[in-house]
Amino acid sequence: MSEIVTAERAPIAFAGSALDRADAVRTSPEQLAALMGPRARLLRLNGLEPRIDADGALDWGSLAEADLDAELIFLGLDAVGHGCFVAAPPLGDASTAPPGPRLWQAMAGLSPGDLATYGAARSLAGWHARHRFCPRCGGGTVAARGGWQRDCINPACKAEHFPRLDPVVIMTVEHDGDLLLGRQPRFPKGRYSALAGFIEPGESLEEAVAREIFEEAGVRVAHVAFVASQPWPFPSSLMLGCHAIAKGRDLVIDHTELDDARWFTRAEVADAMAGAPDAAFGAPPPHAVAWHLLDRWLRG
Amino acid sequence: MSEIVTAERAPIAFAGSALDRADAVRTSPEQLAALMGPRARLLRLNGLEPRIDADGALDWGSLAEADLDAELIFLGLDAVGHGCFVAAPPLGDASTAPPGPRLWQAMAGLSPGDLATYGAARSLAGWHARHRFCPRCGGGTVAARGGWQRDCINPACKAEHFPRLDPVVIMTVEHDGDLLLGRQPRFPKGRYSALAGFIEPGESLEEAVAREIFEEAGVRVAHVAFVASQPWPFPSSLMLGCHAIAKGRDLVIDHTELDDARWFTRAEVADAMAGAPDAAFGAPPPHAVAWHLLDRWLRG
Repeated sequence: MSEIVTAERAPIAFAGSALDRADAVRTSPEQLAALMGPRARLLRLNGLEPRIDADGALDWGSLAEADLDAELIFLGLDAVGHGCFVAAPPLGDASTAPPGPRLWQAMAGLSPGDLATYGAARSLAGWHARHRFCPRCGGGTVAARGGWQRDCINPACKAEHFPRLDPVVIMTVEHDGDLLLGRQPRFPKGRYSALAGFIEPGESLEEAVAREIFEEAGVRVAHVAFVASQPWPFPSSLMLGCHAIAKGRDLVIDHTELDDARWFTRAEVADAMAGAPDAAFGAPPPHAVAWHLLDRWLRG
Repeated sequence: MSEIVTAERAPIAFAGSALDRADAVRTSPEQLAALMGPRARLLRLNGLEPRIDADGALDWGSLAEADLDAELIFLGLDAVGHGCFVAAPPLGDASTAPPGPRLWQAMAGLSPGDLATYGAARSLAGWHARHRFCPRCGGGTVAARGGWQRDCINPACKAEHFPRLDPVVIMTVEHDGDLLLGRQPRFPKGRYSALAGFIEPGESLEEAVAREIFEEAGVRVAHVAFVASQPWPFPSSLMLGCHAIAKGRDLVIDHTELDDARWFTRAEVADAMAGAPDAAFGAPPPHAVAWHLLDRWLRG
């Protein structure tokens, strides 16, 4: 939502869709039906991957292209009030794999607004594909509320299910002017980034930050501050970026989670973020909220 | 985690469990088995409600009390390193109803640490009871990783499922020194509190705050700041408390969501938080993160 003043120097990837979610429409079968006319737009996907038009933008067609029995998800209204939809993929097309190079290449050409629209569509479509059955009773489910809900069709159950979103803490850790960063085994050679982990039931955001830093690096923290957030649709994370102040700098690295973790000086972080050829490490990419955490820290 | 310095004047309810989650234990069948000996502790529940001992604390028994076929969830280690568990309730015992007066009365007598332990246990146990089946294929699921995962037993699927946590934004809104608060139909007579709503796929925390305020009250916001968070185990919310600065004060109230919304002066908020008999409204209760949002705002 571009109206919000933020402290970011660059757009946060996957945020800032130009679509109006128009949530009141979801509960009105009449309004939904009226928006499904010939002017309605259908986001074209290959499975869960975006199709790109000749201008490098998201590719849209008409609802007539959707399978007759496809469940349509209402993404929102475009700038002129036309309904925008995506079709829930058929059963089985429910990959939760992280994006590969081809997907990153396709996404790199999208405008920030298109990238956010695609992310929302991908996250929702993937949720539908992975939730064809009721986890409570095993019965079938059908889409409801314009695709923002699935209802169990078992009359003895009738459970309602909602799109899932998994909150994740991701954090820089500071001690005596240095920054703690870690290397996950799946990272490209030389890259270090912010530590991260899923928040668990029964803990606050601040507790999750402290727990993850202690588990992964053996460091206790004294203070936790929120910095910025990011939707991350692989498949449905909400990244909650934080900055923590550590009580000490002795590391006990959990090598089941991390290849390595190290303290870096401010100059080393600045060189890495500037892409200096002799930098001490490779910085996280700008589409990651970790990039913003490092950028904000460098700027004070 | 009491080590973190926070700006709160009182504990945040449902945070601050004294148990060590000891997450490495979850992946070690040997360590889990060793912790399930005679010294292991079983949290006694009635359904999902807490049982209280003679001292007003959570009531613990031994694992021998659990049904032979009960799935045991590893909650963590107590101060002397004994394993603490709760049994997943049998199929069907999966209430997601908000707490009633009897539950609030039981919880009111618990220490902050016990309340947090109970909240985590309730949220996890309820998740297991509501996820006996695989949403992807409809097959059965079994508990894994000490109760922090459920695995589909269908060999053609084998999907892994993790406890669900639903991030919610809850926020005070300020304009020209006044605070916007709303009344939900289910609130006790006279109470006003912070606006709130679930974060959706494809939006950042900051966007969700702006969207909810516009949807519920018709007000656009210029700035959003994070304040404090709270786990809320009814059934599995993560409350993310924020403070927003509004661009204007004209209200368009969504009466499907709210009975009312109003701007209150600082003096009115102070009177309400002090429990003044002639206060303009009733403040949210201290166990809600909304209380902390109002308290922090009053303290500047």
